[in-house]
Amino acid sequence: MNHLSLQDLTRFTSEVFQHAGMRAADANQVAELLVWADARGVPSHGVSRIGRYLDFIERGDLDAQARPEVASIGPAAAMVHAARAAGPVAMVLACSEAVRRARTQAIGLCIVEGTTHVGAVGYYCARIAAEGCAALVSVAGTPNMAYAGTRVPAVSTAPLAMAVPGAAGDPDVVFDMASSVIGVGKLRQARRSGDPLPPGAALDKDGRPTTDAEAASVLLPVGGAKGAGLALMIELLTGALAGSPILSPHILGASTRHSQNALVVAIDIAAFRPLEAFRADVGSLQGALRGLPLQQGVDEVRMPGQRGARSAEMQRHEGVRLSAKMHAELAQLAQRFALRPPAPQP
Amino acid sequence: MNHLSLQDLTRFTSEVFQHAGMRAADANQVAELLVWADARGVPSHGVSRIGRYLDFIERGDLDAQARPEVASIGPAAAMVHAARAAGPVAMVLACSEAVRRARTQAIGLCIVEGTTHVGAVGYYCARIAAEGCAALVSVAGTPNMAYAGTRVPAVSTAPLAMAVPGAAGDPDVVFDMASSVIGVGKLRQARRSGDPLPPGAALDKDGRPTTDAEAASVLLPVGGAKGAGLALMIELLTGALAGSPILSPHILGASTRHSQNALVVAIDIAAFRPLEAFRADVGSLQGALRGLPLQQGVDEVRMPGQRGARSAEMQRHEGVRLSAKMHAELAQLAQRFALRPPAPQP
Repeated sequence: MNHLSLQDLTRFTSEVFQHAGMRAADANQVAELLVWADARGVPSHGVSRIGRYLDFIERGDLDAQARPEVASIGPAAAMVHAARAAGPVAMVLACSEAVRRARTQAIGLCIVEGTTHVGAVGYYCARIAAEGCAALVSVAGTPNMAYAGTRVPAVSTAPLAMAVPGAAGDPDVVFDMASSVIGVGKLRQARRSGDPLPPGAALDKDGRPTTDAEAASVLLPVGGAKGAGLALMIELLTGALAGSPILSPHILGASTRHSQNALVVAIDIAAFRPLEAFRADVGSLQGALRGLPLQQGVDEVRMPGQRGARSAEMQRHEGVRLSAKMHAELAQLAQRFALRPPAPQP
Repeated sequence: MNHLSLQDLTRFTSEVFQHAGMRAADANQVAELLVWADARGVPSHGVSRIGRYLDFIERGDLDAQARPEVASIGPAAAMVHAARAAGPVAMVLACSEAVRRARTQAIGLCIVEGTTHVGAVGYYCARIAAEGCAALVSVAGTPNMAYAGTRVPAVSTAPLAMAVPGAAGDPDVVFDMASSVIGVGKLRQARRSGDPLPPGAALDKDGRPTTDAEAASVLLPVGGAKGAGLALMIELLTGALAGSPILSPHILGASTRHSQNALVVAIDIAAFRPLEAFRADVGSLQGALRGLPLQQGVDEVRMPGQRGARSAEMQRHEGVRLSAKMHAELAQLAQRFALRPPAPQP
């Protein structure tokens, strides 16, 4: 299997979304996010989502032409009314707003309401960290995870991500967790491969624990009440704060529309201390951790995001490795929209 | 065993700390926090900590006379230099600063550096929620939990708490999680009771998983890399941001002093929408969740903090229930400092 050129996979992905009605700048943004995830070694959030995003457009859940609007709430805060814009389009706007406000106010908060699948949340945190800011981003969506004690979907697998600039010469520190034991992408992957799920990750339709991906009907929160409570709070800090709740309308059957809300916080490190001093402290911690005795079978201590940064570095040179199934899907898309398929890495 | 009067247990606890050198207002604040935790049914963070706080004072880790200072960083942010003040003294100041800034800027951020054990983090979130704000509070301390892959303490069991005002007539929603599978308090409790630890909660001194509380040498993060990464990020967002790191000096043996740093965020809900509309959405979600089918053996769906609020309500009327061991400890303290012991509930 040939590895694909990162640039050309991005070009192709953007053309698909332009064909589906997006402006070039918006399509480029969505493509950049998806290919970023593939390059970081997270194919569940990569171009494998193209089909699903096209479905959202077809169903009207995603408005390819939408222009998200910023409503300022004082110098340090804003809301982005996404009007069903693609997640990356609304989120990148929110990141810019949060960073811009952090520059003068030390902190910037942006609440995003009414967007669609935002994809890999680490991407937004990484963008903010690249500006010399600390980032916190979280997202609430439609129910796909049990709340503590329920045996049906009640909350979303709300991801929580944080990032800070890295030590000099090292990648930025990018942490990204789902509030579920395993994410939706991993469940889908297990369904395809037939591999068992880890214990405690899912319930079947009768509410019994299962490791059979086919039988899995609802994901379980990490740490029980911890992940469940986290997901619930993120809904309240986004949907309830913005007057655009997602969970209760879905639970009560009043909505079946795909939707996401998000919270974006940027903190300008230079407002607190020189950025280089901060980076030096990140480096000291990294060094201290790397000197510690390891658990059996563990080869090294990794900082959050380090594996993804290494993967991205390698794939920048060697091209993106995708599964045979994904290559076939891309070929089909190229045919369907009469586009030049993504080129292999030269 | 008699239940103790909440008010008189607070009076007694405050007198102990005044005897140890604290000003009355500061001692009252520490006492209020500890008794709050006991009343909420979290004795691991209640008056059982008095002895440890006195040790901190004796060792010089806690300066009973310290006056924390606020350094303003623009209208939306501030730092609190705690100068080794008791955690509750520095944290309550940080909460006031964060809320005050949120009133005019929609969001207020306060970084606390150089304080000591802050106790139950939910308390601070609850204070902020009582002001009609959403709250996010997190704390980093000395290493007591493994980082992903290490078999010795590398990060702290950094708690993350969030709260929002509750539906009309209902308690506020107060969520509080540790980044470890079980907290330090629960480990101590298991050591006293001889009960086994849950699997996956701890390693012994050779890095092997253990459920034997006596053999447990290091706590494990919830969800592996999730809890570990969360704890690491909180250190970076507090200690590294404030220029007051805790983990690397401890790991490298350059410090053995007990210390904590914290992050306090308040968001004024009324800056985004009417508080009553927000409360109504909290109520809708609560109602929707309560109608969902339950897992076997589960009797009800609870909102975060609901159990604690019920416990506090009951103990307000019936007095605080403490263990026999705790009663004995309080009697010893009364004798040691020649204080009137806490009175039973009338």
